[in-house]
Amino acid sequence: MDIPSLEQNATAVSRPAFARWLGSTNTVTRTFLAAGRIPGLINLGGGLPAPETYPAAELADIARWAIEQHPQDTLGYNPIEGLPELRNALAARFSTPELRLGRENVLVTSSGMQGLDLIGKVLLDKGGLIAGQFPTYLGALDAWRPRNPIYRNLILDEAGFDPVMALAGAQFAYTVPNFSNPTGRLVGVPIRQALVDAAHATGTWLVEDDPYGGLQYDGAPLPRMIELSGRKGSGQVYDGPVVYMGTLSKEIAPGLRIGWVIAAPAMIEALTMAKQGSDMCTSGLTQRVALAALESGLVERLQPVIVNLYRERRDALCAALEEHLREWFAFEKPVGSMFVWAVARSPGLDTDRLLSAALEAGVCIAPSSVFDALGQNRRALRLNFTLNPPDRLAEGVRRLATALRALDGLD
Amino acid sequence: MDIPSLEQNATAVSRPAFARWLGSTNTVTRTFLAAGRIPGLINLGGGLPAPETYPAAELADIARWAIEQHPQDTLGYNPIEGLPELRNALAARFSTPELRLGRENVLVTSSGMQGLDLIGKVLLDKGGLIAGQFPTYLGALDAWRPRNPIYRNLILDEAGFDPVMALAGAQFAYTVPNFSNPTGRLVGVPIRQALVDAAHATGTWLVEDDPYGGLQYDGAPLPRMIELSGRKGSGQVYDGPVVYMGTLSKEIAPGLRIGWVIAAPAMIEALTMAKQGSDMCTSGLTQRVALAALESGLVERLQPVIVNLYRERRDALCAALEEHLREWFAFEKPVGSMFVWAVARSPGLDTDRLLSAALEAGVCIAPSSVFDALGQNRRALRLNFTLNPPDRLAEGVRRLATALRALDGLD
Repeated sequence: MDIPSLEQNATAVSRPAFARWLGSTNTVTRTFLAAGRIPGLINLGGGLPAPETYPAAELADIARWAIEQHPQDTLGYNPIEGLPELRNALAARFSTPELRLGRENVLVTSSGMQGLDLIGKVLLDKGGLIAGQFPTYLGALDAWRPRNPIYRNLILDEAGFDPVMALAGAQFAYTVPNFSNPTGRLVGVPIRQALVDAAHATGTWLVEDDPYGGLQYDGAPLPRMIELSGRKGSGQVYDGPVVYMGTLSKEIAPGLRIGWVIAAPAMIEALTMAKQGSDMCTSGLTQRVALAALESGLVERLQPVIVNLYRERRDALCAALEEHLREWFAFEKPVGSMFVWAVARSPGLDTDRLLSAALEAGVCIAPSSVFDALGQNRRALRLNFTLNPPDRLAEGVRRLATALRALDGLD
Repeated sequence: MDIPSLEQNATAVSRPAFARWLGSTNTVTRTFLAAGRIPGLINLGGGLPAPETYPAAELADIARWAIEQHPQDTLGYNPIEGLPELRNALAARFSTPELRLGRENVLVTSSGMQGLDLIGKVLLDKGGLIAGQFPTYLGALDAWRPRNPIYRNLILDEAGFDPVMALAGAQFAYTVPNFSNPTGRLVGVPIRQALVDAAHATGTWLVEDDPYGGLQYDGAPLPRMIELSGRKGSGQVYDGPVVYMGTLSKEIAPGLRIGWVIAAPAMIEALTMAKQGSDMCTSGLTQRVALAALESGLVERLQPVIVNLYRERRDALCAALEEHLREWFAFEKPVGSMFVWAVARSPGLDTDRLLSAALEAGVCIAPSSVFDALGQNRRALRLNFTLNPPDRLAEGVRRLATALRALDGLD
């Protein structure tokens, strides 16, 4: 971004400098965000849900009911940790016979992003080390950039991956085991177990970010890492090293901005102190709506509808890629999430350059550089399949092929 | 707070250390927050509005209407900067003939507290200097504590106060000109003008935090510092050094968690980058409800009702203080805000000690130490008059007198 220099200020005097991290912000992200405003553009770049899945009529009734029935909760200040009834409901939702959770294990956050910001706030002093699953979710890089962390990249499916070496000495490890963002790859049970064992052995906090757990199209869900960790517990409420993060953004609607962190009570207490100075508390209105959506069964009723819609779109995108893009890119069909990750067959194909050509051709993609703390990985791209219907997905892929031919012509 | 040490972890290995700022958190704040849960306690400590002023029926209708009419805005992701229509409405609300504001001057925040967090995020690298009006709003100290800033205390009504010396070299100055929190003191036009002139002369950003501007009980409102700064402008949209912050928490309901920052476009752009990594965007539901509350005239209709209620409560608290507490404390009747600031006549009276005795006697107060970055000011207290009706305010003051007599007995 353009940080105003002395000359850009209208006043004759200089303004104090902005914090240094603002100078290191990725310009591709900016291009990518601006692209959303181009008319007629097919957006395969972001991670947006299909708006037609939002249960607007039900939520309109719930919102009115929530304010009428709970004016103090919805309109007043709430406890920093969250509405007690919502914390209880989340503890119950994620408890299993081997994972005992109480309210003290739960913090409600103002979106999943806030959970990422808060974990940085409580664990990263200058020079703090993050062991991050690579490639890494763009939003996590954004959340931690102001703290100038050092990254150790974890490539979980690399031969010889050693979880203890990977985690040792890090403040925390960051993972998205369910359909890794951006790659869409499911992390299997043996690696989950090895990461959990390594976290118990080294003490390193293990963040399990799980926004996509509900979006699985084939096969049965795998156990969460926090469940695997719970099996090693004492029978008391959970006190292990896994910090589990979730959100209602993919299961109901992102506009509620409701997320949560489930972790050891000492971690929840630290995150609560951090949240106090970030936004004091999350809106009681959106918390009450979220609670009613969970308790009324709305989330469970919606899930198969969303999963069937997205499975069809995933298949349509993959078919179009197979037909139009196989010459340039290799990809795997993901079993879950919102994305297909495509890796260029030629090391000379630069996906940052492809983004410009794609925008010219009327389609937006997410280039791999934005998922790399160092911005160096320029050989892959991430394509979203949830926002657009099958015919638009196919048209987007055709436009991308046009962009690739244009790029080939230049070389 | 208790930060878990190595020994406190259930696991045999040590966990990574929490960030250092967590070790410096004020324990009085914690006592003070916990006090809210004591049954029968009269809470004069916090800054809570009277819940009976929340327009629940109107907001319930508005919330339902907002989701039905604007499902995409309320339930989907929103621009990081805020809903364009809400930004336009806020720009129009704060424009004057001499202060020209456009949407590019406005950022919607998830509460006033988030504005404070974000200004720290964009302006404070290690060792950053804040020129802060002293005593200082507790929430601002909480927001900036993780960044370990250095404070230069500004005592605005001190003889010989030199605004240029006060602001020079600071990243920003922090002020609450309308009824300074905690003191309730109105900063007059000459000092406002001098601060604005000093900000223009030195370049230092001048934060004008204004949560209480709508709560004035006597006299006419004074011009905002951003208006005084606008008079020095070029006729283009505002590009000066004042960073104005507001919230709907006192004018409608804190549960919406809607605040805003109005500033030069370069500052709004930097704050937007910071907000992206904090919570991505504010809830579209609460933004749409806020917009409808502003546009329907609900805020304007509520204001005289709230002001009349709070004026009566202010007068009741001051009468009770005059009757029961004048022996120990001097105070001024504030023309606005939610608080009376009382300074002990005896330098030996320690208001941190008084808090414990007061809690024993069934009343909570805010001791002055929490409004001092160094925790040293222990001679005053802040009393809230908005939450409780007149008879409870009088009873609270009688309980405080009982606590003071108990403390006298100990000495």
